[in-house]
Amino acid sequence: MDQFEAARPYVGVFTIPPTPFLESGAIDEASLRRCLDFCVLAGAHGIVMGVNASEAITLTDEERMRVAEITIGHVGGRVPVVIGVSGVSTASSVQHAAHARAAGADSVMAMPPYVRHPPAGEIFEFFAAVAAAAEGIPVWIQDYAGPVGTPMSTALLTRIVTEIEGVEFVKEETAFAPQVITVLAGAAGDHARGVMGGMAGRYLMEEARRGACGTMPACEVTDAHVAVWNAIESGDEREARRLHTRLLPLLNYEAMYSFTIYKEVLVRRGVIASAKTRVPGAGRLDAENHRELDILLKDLAPLLTLGLRPDF
Amino acid sequence: MDQFEAARPYVGVFTIPPTPFLESGAIDEASLRRCLDFCVLAGAHGIVMGVNASEAITLTDEERMRVAEITIGHVGGRVPVVIGVSGVSTASSVQHAAHARAAGADSVMAMPPYVRHPPAGEIFEFFAAVAAAAEGIPVWIQDYAGPVGTPMSTALLTRIVTEIEGVEFVKEETAFAPQVITVLAGAAGDHARGVMGGMAGRYLMEEARRGACGTMPACEVTDAHVAVWNAIESGDEREARRLHTRLLPLLNYEAMYSFTIYKEVLVRRGVIASAKTRVPGAGRLDAENHRELDILLKDLAPLLTLGLRPDF
Amino acid sequence: MDQFEAARPYVGVFTIPPTPFLESGAIDEASLRRCLDFCVLAGAHGIVMGVNASEAITLTDEERMRVAEITIGHVGGRVPVVIGVSGVSTASSVQHAAHARAAGADSVMAMPPYVRHPPAGEIFEFFAAVAAAAEGIPVWIQDYAGPVGTPMSTALLTRIVTEIEGVEFVKEETAFAPQVITVLAGAAGDHARGVMGGMAGRYLMEEARRGACGTMPACEVTDAHVAVWNAIESGDEREARRLHTRLLPLLNYEAMYSFTIYKEVLVRRGVIASAKTRVPGAGRLDAENHRELDILLKDLAPLLTLGLRPDF
Amino acid sequence: MDQFEAARPYVGVFTIPPTPFLESGAIDEASLRRCLDFCVLAGAHGIVMGVNASEAITLTDEERMRVAEITIGHVGGRVPVVIGVSGVSTASSVQHAAHARAAGADSVMAMPPYVRHPPAGEIFEFFAAVAAAAEGIPVWIQDYAGPVGTPMSTALLTRIVTEIEGVEFVKEETAFAPQVITVLAGAAGDHARGVMGGMAGRYLMEEARRGACGTMPACEVTDAHVAVWNAIESGDEREARRLHTRLLPLLNYEAMYSFTIYKEVLVRRGVIASAKTRVPGAGRLDAENHRELDILLKDLAPLLTLGLRPDF
Repeated sequence: MDQFEAARPYVGVFTIPPTPFLESGAIDEASLRRCLDFCVLAGAHGIVMGVNASEAITLTDEERMRVAEITIGHVGGRVPVVIGVSGVSTASSVQHAAHARAAGADSVMAMPPYVRHPPAGEIFEFFAAVAAAAEGIPVWIQDYAGPVGTPMSTALLTRIVTEIEGVEFVKEETAFAPQVITVLAGAAGDHARGVMGGMAGRYLMEEARRGACGTMPACEVTDAHVAVWNAIESGDEREARRLHTRLLPLLNYEAMYSFTIYKEVLVRRGVIASAKTRVPGAGRLDAENHRELDILLKDLAPLLTLGLRPDF
Repeated sequence: MDQFEAARPYVGVFTIPPTPFLESGAIDEASLRRCLDFCVLAGAHGIVMGVNASEAITLTDEERMRVAEITIGHVGGRVPVVIGVSGVSTASSVQHAAHARAAGADSVMAMPPYVRHPPAGEIFEFFAAVAAAAEGIPVWIQDYAGPVGTPMSTALLTRIVTEIEGVEFVKEETAFAPQVITVLAGAAGDHARGVMGGMAGRYLMEEARRGACGTMPACEVTDAHVAVWNAIESGDEREARRLHTRLLPLLNYEAMYSFTIYKEVLVRRGVIASAKTRVPGAGRLDAENHRELDILLKDLAPLLTLGLRPDF
Repeated sequence: MDQFEAARPYVGVFTIPPTPFLESGAIDEASLRRCLDFCVLAGAHGIVMGVNASEAITLTDEERMRVAEITIGHVGGRVPVVIGVSGVSTASSVQHAAHARAAGADSVMAMPPYVRHPPAGEIFEFFAAVAAAAEGIPVWIQDYAGPVGTPMSTALLTRIVTEIEGVEFVKEETAFAPQVITVLAGAAGDHARGVMGGMAGRYLMEEARRGACGTMPACEVTDAHVAVWNAIESGDEREARRLHTRLLPLLNYEAMYSFTIYKEVLVRRGVIASAKTRVPGAGRLDAENHRELDILLKDLAPLLTLGLRPDF
Repeated sequence: MDQFEAARPYVGVFTIPPTPFLESGAIDEASLRRCLDFCVLAGAHGIVMGVNASEAITLTDEERMRVAEITIGHVGGRVPVVIGVSGVSTASSVQHAAHARAAGADSVMAMPPYVRHPPAGEIFEFFAAVAAAAEGIPVWIQDYAGPVGTPMSTALLTRIVTEIEGVEFVKEETAFAPQVITVLAGAAGDHARGVMGGMAGRYLMEEARRGACGTMPACEVTDAHVAVWNAIESGDEREARRLHTRLLPLLNYEAMYSFTIYKEVLVRRGVIASAKTRVPGAGRLDAENHRELDILLKDLAPLLTLGLRPDF
């Protein structure tokens, strides 16, 4: 029996590529394509594009649509693609959802509008509008902490997945997210086909035990995340935990430096050309950061089975 | 002698039209054009489009550019047009600044990126990039309170207007904004051609005495705001204050209900077709709100010299 | 028939004295006593002490209890006294509620803990604990906007006043507070004996029409607030509005400068000795502020029937 | 040569005991004393009491002073004691600093007032007042992220440690804290005797390399933290990292559940009687949390050299 039957094919590590930038600040499409191949070859069970870890909030609409098109086209059905359609308003998310669907996305995911946050009643209407624009492909609710996210009660999440056709999945990453997964499983029942965790997979062992059907981390060590998940799905919790513990020092480091580390690791692995970021306040790595990263990656090297370069 | 010589033509009431929506949620271009005419005929000394009071954060990029083009084209040089180019990132603001300049805007105005807020060093680089994209037309700094705004120190504001060519004006509306106008006048000296206040003009009497060259309110009672300013500029402070006090009850009411009231007043004045808003959490007016507004507008009617309809 | 019968004696202007400080920063008890007399003589229908406008968050526990004791003792039953017992935790509010009751307070008022904000379930438990500590005197819920307040849904407010014995009143000052008053009146029915507004009474005319039993403003122009309320209660809405409009320019000014203006007005009226404040970021008045205040007070003078000094 | 000579005796693991509560909610003084002994016996180089991890914001002033007195008295000079004196206002922090000094604290530590946050100028005055009240014992600046903390620029931190006599140390835990340690070391030079990190020691390896003189974690695995530090100070970075990596899964878990886990671990180790917390929104552990904690502690057991109980 497959405990994840209802959720398939949305099971496992749905990995988030960054939006690579040239030093000029423009999008580096060649690096993006390489990165998509890297994710697929590293074993990602799915690709999530256009969300927080990909700095989607910093792209123009035209850039976001271009990135979605490249992603869907270049992945070419090798794994499912989830396109992030969070926006500044319902109109913005509807635009991106309609575009993603037309471009061939397998599903779309949205937080409520992230500049000014809507009250509960408007959130329900928001997801109804997004689901309508998605015209039949599944919609994910991203339940995310502030200031960018709008945390929702489990009662509201349940109401949305129960009453709005097409809203079928949740990505859960608010305070005490693992507990929320348990509560939601009880409250939403079959109305939620699956719930994935986030937070780089730092709480994946616990989330999996609570019934999460996967996790959505940034992609720089997709091979390592996949190794953890495959052990989980094969039922070997001991091995899964051993691998997860091995991965944790890097995830912990990323919890502080986030975007810049995601990209620096991909640069070092030869996947993208530049670690340049756009997100305001993302910071820059200094010499000690690089030295620490040297150490962390050397230690993690055995799990980085794909594309490992000789110099670390 | 003209105390505002350096600031001209950016002197007086630079009024902010809303973005009118059809009941379907799409932009109502006919109402927009009527509203632009209304502003000009009501005596606005300038038009500011694409900022907070126009719900710019809720538009798609394409909609924002369309609105900017209509505004610039329809105003047709009758008064100066300032286009708001705040965005989610430097790339976004650069896009809108370049577009506004190409479309014929007289100047552009920006807050730092408003989803994640940049630290001081990045803010400087942000305005340098916007000024470069504006290619010679003046740039306004909008110093606005959070969560959408990024309040800046007077030291930083001074550094930006002093060191970045093209950044010449400030719209100031953080805590204790009138005091900031005084401090900035001393610190920035001639590097700032002018500073305008915001906050619907509620503190205009004090701001004017501190040297503000104007104010940027929402446009629904432009005729009344203009009457106040003209009295100020003519040196008749007593009359200015009398008119301002007459205006204050409506401004006070708008301080709570903002967007919905801006639009409802314009609907009642026959300028736009619908009071529909997009901003998350903008709320809706109930019966008591309408009754209160009846009273406030009846009392204000003598100052609403343009387009007054017989039924209030 | 008395529409406010259930709410009595909590009807009218419940005015909030500041905590006066000596230049040394210590509490000025003599000024406090003078201020309490001023409030009563100015016609306040009740006194509220130990809340936001009195800078209660800046006092030590010992100071808060001392101020409560002086207030209750000096008012001596001339009007009802409501003591603010908001605190950093349930334990803190319980301590202040028990103290206030023992000291003879007529009722107590609390926001949920204001440093870290509790979720809904904990808020219910919080008010149950406060009501238990208040041992039978009425408890007010203060529904206040962030960051200090914890806005509550009308469903939660209704549940608290319905299920917890002793919780009988609400002070409402979140976004769209007047609308909340209407919704709450319908939802809570007789379980809420009364609801008062806040926000300095700037929306009092509308709140009263919606059934508010009073308002809780800072006390510096209590005589003017009382004149407005008395006209409302006597049914003369036209006169009430005329007086309220006369009061509005000062209330508008206070909306920006708050604490420092509350105290400066009381200094000018000869009530307290110093305008010194403790609240972080309260700011200081500059020369232009004083000049503006001169004008505003001169205009308001006819309504300041008590303790008017000859020099403004 | 001792690289930490200037900082001594403030070097190493300065561990933060919780404030233990009885099921009734009152402070459990017996558990507190056991916990202080536990810290000292586990090798803590110092004790920090009355800060965030000890839920100090939830105590009444009387409770805070009582806890400080018990801590200083019971530790009895075995290791240095730092008392947290952050408060709601300057007056509050001055009260606690004066009390701590009189009670025999070795040094005191403060964040700026944490309800309403002061601007830079007021922060300087705040630390001057705290240093005056501390009368010669060293003062620590706690540079902490919001919403409770008030992040300070390195320029301001440098000015404070340079110009205010008595302010000698910094605890740094804002965004990119390790980088701040490096910048501060360059800017403040000898004016800062030492800088410690926080964040449970999750970034200790990097902080130590940047010159941090220690770390201030919650105390539940003090023995493990001490083992890491001792390896660092002995120059054995490889062993330090091995131990730190071993510790990381628990620290990662605490990053989500914080207070409740700190206390639950101490309950399981037989140190305190109850895991009850006061902090609003601290949450409660469910069955899966307990199961996860079982696993994490079993794995960490070899490092928990003190007070290990047989049942995990």
